[in-house]
Amino acid sequence: MTPVLFVGYLAAALGTVCWIPQAWKAWSTGDTSGISLLSNMLFLTTVSLWLLYGLLVADWPIIIANIFAVLAIISIVTAKLKYK
Amino acid sequence: MTPVLFVGYLAAALGTVCWIPQAWKAWSTGDTSGISLLSNMLFLTTVSLWLLYGLLVADWPIIIANIFAVLAIISIVTAKLKYK
Repeated sequence: MTPVLFVGYLAAALGTVCWIPQAWKAWSTGDTSGISLLSNMLFLTTVSLWLLYGLLVADWPIIIANIFAVLAIISIVTAKLKYK
Repeated sequence: MTPVLFVGYLAAALGTVCWIPQAWKAWSTGDTSGISLLSNMLFLTTVSLWLLYGLLVADWPIIIANIFAVLAIISIVTAKLKYK
């Protein structure tokens, strides 16, 4: 793997897990008042579009990365709606 | 532009602006207790790596999308550190 591809895969891998601590924090504390629902809804739309794009171009790294991101952001949005 | 490319560009465009409401909310209310510093630091690393990847492959849509994302997330992390 070239160093350039390594940077791309590292970014993709980190993007799949980075919102897990936020989802965990929201559900374990119920403290979601500072979380922007608008930003998270826009980001959910963003990662859903990336997932659709990945499916349309049949690109597995994009598909897998964005399935995990969609699930994490749905979890955060659900916590926000429940505890607001 | 093909419909597939349109989906990709729409996702990229939305990704540049989606964190602006969160940055605005954090600075205008000072209410950042529910924001996960770990998630935002990981996401800052993620978008920084995407920016580096865009620079390495000289892909302007990736570069521009991630410059805006890096700036928005730096703003959110700064608010979190200031108001925690």
